[in-house]
Amino acid sequence: MATTLANPGLISLAAGFTDQSSLPVQETREILQELLRSPKTGPAALQYGTTIGDQVLRELTASRLKQLDEVRGGSAILSPERMVITNGSQQMLYMVTEALCDPGDVVLVEDPSYFVYLGILQSHGVHARGVSMEHDGLDLAHLEQVLETLKREGTLPRLKLLYMVSYYQNPTGVTTSFAKKGGVLNLLRKFERVAGHPLYLLEDAAYRELRFQGEAVKSAVAADPLGERVIYTGTYSKPFATGARVGFGLLPKSVLTPVVRIKGNHDFGSSNLLQQLLARALACGLYESHLAILRNRYAQKAKVMRKHLQQHFPPAVVWREPHGGLYFWPRLPRWLKSGPHSKLFQEALKKNVLYVPGQLCYAEDPSRPRPNNEMRLSFGAASERNICTGIERLGKALHRLL
Amino acid sequence: MATTLANPGLISLAAGFTDQSSLPVQETREILQELLRSPKTGPAALQYGTTIGDQVLRELTASRLKQLDEVRGGSAILSPERMVITNGSQQMLYMVTEALCDPGDVVLVEDPSYFVYLGILQSHGVHARGVSMEHDGLDLAHLEQVLETLKREGTLPRLKLLYMVSYYQNPTGVTTSFAKKGGVLNLLRKFERVAGHPLYLLEDAAYRELRFQGEAVKSAVAADPLGERVIYTGTYSKPFATGARVGFGLLPKSVLTPVVRIKGNHDFGSSNLLQQLLARALACGLYESHLAILRNRYAQKAKVMRKHLQQHFPPAVVWREPHGGLYFWPRLPRWLKSGPHSKLFQEALKKNVLYVPGQLCYAEDPSRPRPNNEMRLSFGAASERNICTGIERLGKALHRLL
Repeated sequence: MATTLANPGLISLAAGFTDQSSLPVQETREILQELLRSPKTGPAALQYGTTIGDQVLRELTASRLKQLDEVRGGSAILSPERMVITNGSQQMLYMVTEALCDPGDVVLVEDPSYFVYLGILQSHGVHARGVSMEHDGLDLAHLEQVLETLKREGTLPRLKLLYMVSYYQNPTGVTTSFAKKGGVLNLLRKFERVAGHPLYLLEDAAYRELRFQGEAVKSAVAADPLGERVIYTGTYSKPFATGARVGFGLLPKSVLTPVVRIKGNHDFGSSNLLQQLLARALACGLYESHLAILRNRYAQKAKVMRKHLQQHFPPAVVWREPHGGLYFWPRLPRWLKSGPHSKLFQEALKKNVLYVPGQLCYAEDPSRPRPNNEMRLSFGAASERNICTGIERLGKALHRLL
Repeated sequence: MATTLANPGLISLAAGFTDQSSLPVQETREILQELLRSPKTGPAALQYGTTIGDQVLRELTASRLKQLDEVRGGSAILSPERMVITNGSQQMLYMVTEALCDPGDVVLVEDPSYFVYLGILQSHGVHARGVSMEHDGLDLAHLEQVLETLKREGTLPRLKLLYMVSYYQNPTGVTTSFAKKGGVLNLLRKFERVAGHPLYLLEDAAYRELRFQGEAVKSAVAADPLGERVIYTGTYSKPFATGARVGFGLLPKSVLTPVVRIKGNHDFGSSNLLQQLLARALACGLYESHLAILRNRYAQKAKVMRKHLQQHFPPAVVWREPHGGLYFWPRLPRWLKSGPHSKLFQEALKKNVLYVPGQLCYAEDPSRPRPNNEMRLSFGAASERNICTGIERLGKALHRLL
């Protein structure tokens, strides 16, 4: 951030910001106008709400999840009663960790994972253990091996949950298949007896709605028929407006009560005005129509980035095409470092382009060295023009060092 | 909440909600219209902001504090650089406690104090020790005695801060004099050597702007010329719109960095849209003009409550008239219990009126029994008509039991 401000010519492919030109400004203006014009809804939107969140928004959110998971009719699991509204899904990740983890506990994470979540774990004194990833999500054999190791070490009782960014993962762009979600739940269940308590799957679905190609994948909630082990977090920030910061969590009953209590202590409820904004956007269809625009927009920007990666990056650098989300994750030859102190990073800065060094997305896990030859490139915030120029500059830096 | 919903005839004098009829609906509508109409400010309001908060809002807030504390010219203390924007001031109270306290630590609180803050302490495993109150704030002699006791017990190194709701306190309505703020800072400073670390004064000024009579009192910041010991929290929820949930903190440098890091983990920044709303309201004078209306409104409602207390409450029940804020704090004869299991509370419920039992506002402090003969009555949310009826019903219940 400081680097960007000090250098207005810098092109940032680092920030996870969303596309500025497709923010729903007009839509938001209309909804707020209508909301605040009515003597019935206006004052209510400016008054305190409840800690758990607006009832209508929770109902609409539960309905939307049912639609995404293709559940028809009533569902005791995808129910507004289990839904809590938060300040972005980030707050839910924080609160769940606060509710379930004590200092010295262990959480399993994808290797690599969302770096802010790694920071949350660190701030709570929780040890992160990485589980390798394949092109369709966690490597289940490695997960079993890690669980066996924890069992052997006697630290399984300190394991509380597994954290997974299941759609168009931050940072790799990988989507976890539905089969693997079931596989993860089975493995966790298998080790619960030794752990002595539930082992939860924390599914962070922040990018779920930003799908622009490939099949839709059901959530882990659909693989947990009793609704006892999956903690699902989602957000309206990325698919609607990041400035609104409205997220949510669907929680097993055992987690719901402590999380609502923590929410009460944090802020006793998210802004009612923003919740009403989202509830209206969902109810009147503006959310859905805006989402369609957004998906096209990101599809287009991803295409531009891919084209320029192909054109400007040396063949020794490899990547997979994401089917949604905001990120490419190029991998360099192992000997070419990409970290914040690397020649490449410095060279990129000199050429006025910024990326997220892959190293930052790996937990401090003593069982393996932290890989240091990847980069996260975001096509979210940068304009198409800046994507072209940025990738071209990075390509030059790479060619120079290879 | 559940009681209220289940019983629509119930009059709640319990909730700390604000006056529904004077919420700035029209003002908010106009500001948001203007904000979202402009191609320059519209998209920016719907994009992510920074973790510490919007620069303009932080500047305007610092200016406003300068105005309230009658500071002219530049000030290194009342500076936007030390200002963090939060989701209500509640989030700041939470983050400061998280940053400074470990389980087993001690925090001094007013006796009685804001019950949600007592909950925050409890959830962090922090012991609250109560310090008696006088009509103008803490009893300094008792504060010194408590500090001496901690020193003697050897627990002074576990003391981290003193929490004070300094204006029209929740629940008593008491305002702490400026002289007492200085006295508290002196006493804390005196015991720092034995504590081995800074002892902070956490000044919660949530009700400061809701003054409707009496002199304005300067903040504790003005009694801390080096800006090293006072953590000041304020909010725009109560003086503008509770549904917006925008608060702030002015922090010593030693506390600023850890708090911003925690804010990054909580939610990496409050909603930009709400921050822009408040910044505009402050800049264009709507905040100030609305506040004048609000003050008159609460003055009027306080007058109505006072009149009916005089008329309907037995003479054995005593109270002081608040000069601002939202609360009366009647004290019953010591033998007449007011707690949630008391005959009085049940009788009140039967008569369809709800108050906050005073007992809930006292910390679990083994050094004294929890008083159980007071009640918090709010004139914030209830209509004038409901204030009359509610007090009349409570009066009948009291007469019956006295």
